[in-house]
Amino acid sequence: MADKSEKTKARLPRGFADRSAEDIRAVEKMMATIRSVYELYGFEPADQPLIEYTDALGKFLPDQDRPNEGVFSFQDDDEQWLSLRYDLTAPTARYVAENFERLPKPYRSYRSGWVFRNEKPGPGRFRQFMQFDADTIGTPGVAADAEMAMMMADVMEALGIKRGDYVIRVNNRKVLDGVLEAIGLDGDENAGRRLHVLRAIDKLDKFGPDGVALLLGAGRWDGGKEGEGDFTKGAGLGAAHIERVLSLAAYPDALGGALGLSNDETLASMAKAVEGNARGVEGLEELSVIAKLAHASGYNDDRIRIDPSVVRGLEYYTGPVFEAELLAEIPNDEGQIVRFGSVGGGGRYDGLVSRFRGEPVPATGFSIGVSRLMTALKNLGKLDTTDVIAPVVVLVMDKDTESLGRYQKMVAELRAAGIRSEMYLGGAGMKAQLKYADRRGSPVAIIQGGDERAKGELQIKDLIEGARMSAEITDNAEWRAARPAQVTVAEGELVAEVKKILAAQAEERAK
Amino acid sequence: MADKSEKTKARLPRGFADRSAEDIRAVEKMMATIRSVYELYGFEPADQPLIEYTDALGKFLPDQDRPNEGVFSFQDDDEQWLSLRYDLTAPTARYVAENFERLPKPYRSYRSGWVFRNEKPGPGRFRQFMQFDADTIGTPGVAADAEMAMMMADVMEALGIKRGDYVIRVNNRKVLDGVLEAIGLDGDENAGRRLHVLRAIDKLDKFGPDGVALLLGAGRWDGGKEGEGDFTKGAGLGAAHIERVLSLAAYPDALGGALGLSNDETLASMAKAVEGNARGVEGLEELSVIAKLAHASGYNDDRIRIDPSVVRGLEYYTGPVFEAELLAEIPNDEGQIVRFGSVGGGGRYDGLVSRFRGEPVPATGFSIGVSRLMTALKNLGKLDTTDVIAPVVVLVMDKDTESLGRYQKMVAELRAAGIRSEMYLGGAGMKAQLKYADRRGSPVAIIQGGDERAKGELQIKDLIEGARMSAEITDNAEWRAARPAQVTVAEGELVAEVKKILAAQAEERAK
Repeated sequence: MADKSEKTKARLPRGFADRSAEDIRAVEKMMATIRSVYELYGFEPADQPLIEYTDALGKFLPDQDRPNEGVFSFQDDDEQWLSLRYDLTAPTARYVAENFERLPKPYRSYRSGWVFRNEKPGPGRFRQFMQFDADTIGTPGVAADAEMAMMMADVMEALGIKRGDYVIRVNNRKVLDGVLEAIGLDGDENAGRRLHVLRAIDKLDKFGPDGVALLLGAGRWDGGKEGEGDFTKGAGLGAAHIERVLSLAAYPDALGGALGLSNDETLASMAKAVEGNARGVEGLEELSVIAKLAHASGYNDDRIRIDPSVVRGLEYYTGPVFEAELLAEIPNDEGQIVRFGSVGGGGRYDGLVSRFRGEPVPATGFSIGVSRLMTALKNLGKLDTTDVIAPVVVLVMDKDTESLGRYQKMVAELRAAGIRSEMYLGGAGMKAQLKYADRRGSPVAIIQGGDERAKGELQIKDLIEGARMSAEITDNAEWRAARPAQVTVAEGELVAEVKKILAAQAEERAK
Repeated sequence: MADKSEKTKARLPRGFADRSAEDIRAVEKMMATIRSVYELYGFEPADQPLIEYTDALGKFLPDQDRPNEGVFSFQDDDEQWLSLRYDLTAPTARYVAENFERLPKPYRSYRSGWVFRNEKPGPGRFRQFMQFDADTIGTPGVAADAEMAMMMADVMEALGIKRGDYVIRVNNRKVLDGVLEAIGLDGDENAGRRLHVLRAIDKLDKFGPDGVALLLGAGRWDGGKEGEGDFTKGAGLGAAHIERVLSLAAYPDALGGALGLSNDETLASMAKAVEGNARGVEGLEELSVIAKLAHASGYNDDRIRIDPSVVRGLEYYTGPVFEAELLAEIPNDEGQIVRFGSVGGGGRYDGLVSRFRGEPVPATGFSIGVSRLMTALKNLGKLDTTDVIAPVVVLVMDKDTESLGRYQKMVAELRAAGIRSEMYLGGAGMKAQLKYADRRGSPVAIIQGGDERAKGELQIKDLIEGARMSAEITDNAEWRAARPAQVTVAEGELVAEVKKILAAQAEERAK
C-alpha cells in the first residue's frame, strides 16, 4: 500500500458525474417506456461505437467557430484523428452511408447512449450525457417529420405527462432561411451571420423581443444599460431587417407560453413574413402539411404546435425542426417552481448522409435528453422506484468457517425462493451489522447465535415494523396491536416466515 | 450537397463495431438476466463516467511496460491528462475512495458499460467492448470471494447454461506469488519477471506443459523448432525452478479439461508446491475456506473448482482469482466446434482503493465479457429474440395530403391497440413497398387504393402465410385448407382483423 504522502487523489474529472442507484433505476424505467413507444412505431434498435474518425463526425456544433472546441479528439497510431461522438446523429449518418445498400429504406432506427462535449462545465452542464434518439433516413416526405412530432407526443404521454403539460413545437429552417434570404443574408459568405441571427432568435424566451432586437442589431449589455454587465456583440442588422425577423418569430405564443394562436392563425401570420420568398413559402407549405397530418390522427394544436420561434442550435438542420417542451411547473434543484422547458428536439438533416454519398439521402430525427427528462419526471413524481426492496441481511454472529457456511446456506435458501438477500460480509459486531442493514434499507435481518443454533432456531427481525414502532407508537394498546418486530422460528421455517413478513410490509406500503 | 470528388469517406474506425438490431436485443435480454441475479444477491446498481483522470486509473494493464499503450488519453484544457477507462474496476475504486465515508460498508455494487483498449485490433479483438461487473468493497474475508464464485455459477445457470457445461475456476495469486518467492523472484526489482512467469502459465491450455517450460526458460519458437516462426523470449528460469512452477500449475485437470481431481485432491497437490512458504500456505488456506463455503451452500467441485493454472492478466490482483469457463462445445464463427473458454473473470484487488486512501480497503469483484458471453449463448441457442414481431406496414397508394392523413390514422389506430405498425414513408410504388415490408419481416400489410376507399374497405395481406403458401403448397386441397393470405374488410374492422391474423401467426410459430 502506498505511503500517505504518495497517495493518488481520488477525484471525478470536471464536468462528469457518478450516478446514484436511484437515478440509474429511474433512468432504466424511463428508457424502457421510451423504447416501447419507439418499437410500437416500427423503429429498430441500432448502436454505433462512441469513437468515430473526426472527419466523419464533421463540425456541426454551435461552437464550431472556435477551433478544437466542442469535441474530445486524439490521434490514432496511424496518425488519423479520432473523436468521441458529440451526438448520436453524426455516427448514425456515417453508419447509414457505409451500409446504404443493405439497409431497408426508409431506414427507421433508434439508439441510446453517451455523448461527449468538450465544453466548459457548469452547474447542470455536463461533458458526458445520455441521449435517446429515433431517426428515419431515406425519405424527403414531411410525413416522416410529422410522425416524429406525433411519436414524441406519445412518448410524453406514455411517461405519464398529462395532455396540456407538454407541447411539441414545430418550425421549419426553410422559413427562417427564407426570411434571412429576403434580408440579403444568403450565400456561403453569410453563414456566420445567419447563425448569429438564429441564435439571437433562440433567446426570445429569455430576453423578450426588445432584448432580441438588440442582439439582432448593435448588441446587448447584460445589465440592461450601456456599460452594465457583459456586452454581447449583435448581428448588425438595420431597423427594417430587425423588424422583419421579429415579425416572423416574436408572435404572442412564442413569448407568453399560453395557448395563444391556433396553428392556422400562426401559419397565416408567418405567411406575411415570408411573402415573395420561394424558400420561405415552401417551408411554410411543409409546416401546413405536418399540421394537417397530425390533425388527421387526432393530434391537435394543444399537442403539436407550429411555432416560428423554434430554432435548434445545431447547424446541420435543413427543414422542419421540433422541440418537446414541458409546460408543467416543476420545482427545480433550488426548490423554485419553474416552467421546465425543453427535454428534447430534432429536425430534418438532409445533408448529413449525403456528405458521404454524393447523392441526396434525406433524413429526419429526434433526440431526447435523458437525464434532463429523468429529472423532470422525478420532480413530477412520475418515476417511483420504491418498489425495489433492499436485501434481507443474514447477520454473522460466529465467524468460524463452519458457521459462515451455515449463514451462507440460509442466504442461498432465501435466494432460491427469489428473495433478495445477503450474508453480512464485513468484520463488525452485531450492533454495527444492524446499523449496516438499516443503511441498506433492509426489510428483515436474520440472527442466529450459539444459543439459537443449539435449539435449531433463528430470530427474524422485521426492521421496517421495528423502526415504525419505535418512531410512532406511544401507547400500550397500539403496541400490542402492531406486528411483532421480532420472531423466533425453527430453522426450517426461515423462508416461509420471511415471505410472510415481506408480504405484510408490502400490504402496509400499499395503504 | 458535396461534390462527389469532395465527399468524406464513411468508415468505421479500426477495431470498433456497429451492432445489429438482433445483437442489441440479445444483449439486452442477457443483461436483464445477469442483473436479476446481481440484484438477488443484494448488489446495487452504480455508474461512473467513461472518462477519468489518467493518474486515477493507474496503469495495471498487461501492456503497462510499453509506455502510452493500452489506454486512449488526451489532455484537458487545464493540462491534466484524461483517459477512457480500460475496465470498470479502476473507476469503481476511484468512486469508492472519493465517497468512502457515506457508503455502507461492505459496499456491494454492480455496473455495466463500455471500456476501451488502445490496442492493435484483430479478428474478434475490439478496442471498445462491454463489461458487466459486480464488486464487494471493504472486506478482507474470503467469504466475499466465495460469494463471487457462487454468484457467477448462478449467473451461468440463470442464462440457461446447464450444470456441467460451465465451471468457475478459482486460484489464488498468493499461491502463485509464494512459489515465485520460493524460487527467488520476490521484491519490486523482480516485478517484470514475475509478470513474465504468470503470463507463461496463462498459456498452459494453448501450448501445454512442454511449451510453457520453454516460455519459462530460454524462450519458444512459434514453429516448434529453432528458427521456425516467431520467437518469444523466455523468463530465463533454470530447470529446477521451471519444474517447481510446473509442479504447481500443470496438473492434469488444467490440461485435460476433464473433471480430473476433486478440490481436496487439488489442494493437496498444491500444498507440496508451496511447502515452507508462508505466503503460499496462506493462499492455500484461503482457497480451502472458499471450497468449504461453496460446498456448504451446495456448490460442488463440478461448479466451483480449485485450479492452480488460473492466472488472470491484470496486475492489480492480490488474492483469490476466478475465471468463468464454458465447457460446452460450440460452433465458432468459422463453424468449427470448439470449447468456448473464458467468458469472464475477476479476483481480489486489495491495493486499488488503498492507493487513494492510505489505509487498507480490501475488495473483490467479477467481470463478465458481454459480447463474448452473448456470442456463446447465441451459438448455444439460448438467446432467442424471434418473439419480437416486425411492424405491420400500411402501404401508401395515394400521396395527396388527405390520403396520407387517412393512412396515418390507420397506423394510429393500430398503435393505440398496441400493434407495432408504421405507414410506408418512402416514395416508391406498391411493388417496392411490399418488398420493403418483406425486408422488414412484416407480418401484415394494409392496402387501400381509390376503389377500396370508395367502398369504405381495405385489404389486409398476411405476409407470413402468403410466403408459406407460395413456398410450400403445391396441391389444391392444401391451398383451400390454408389461411387466406389476403382478406378484404370494412375500414372499421382493421384492428380486429389484424389482431386475428397476428394471433393465428403466433399459434403457427408456437407449433
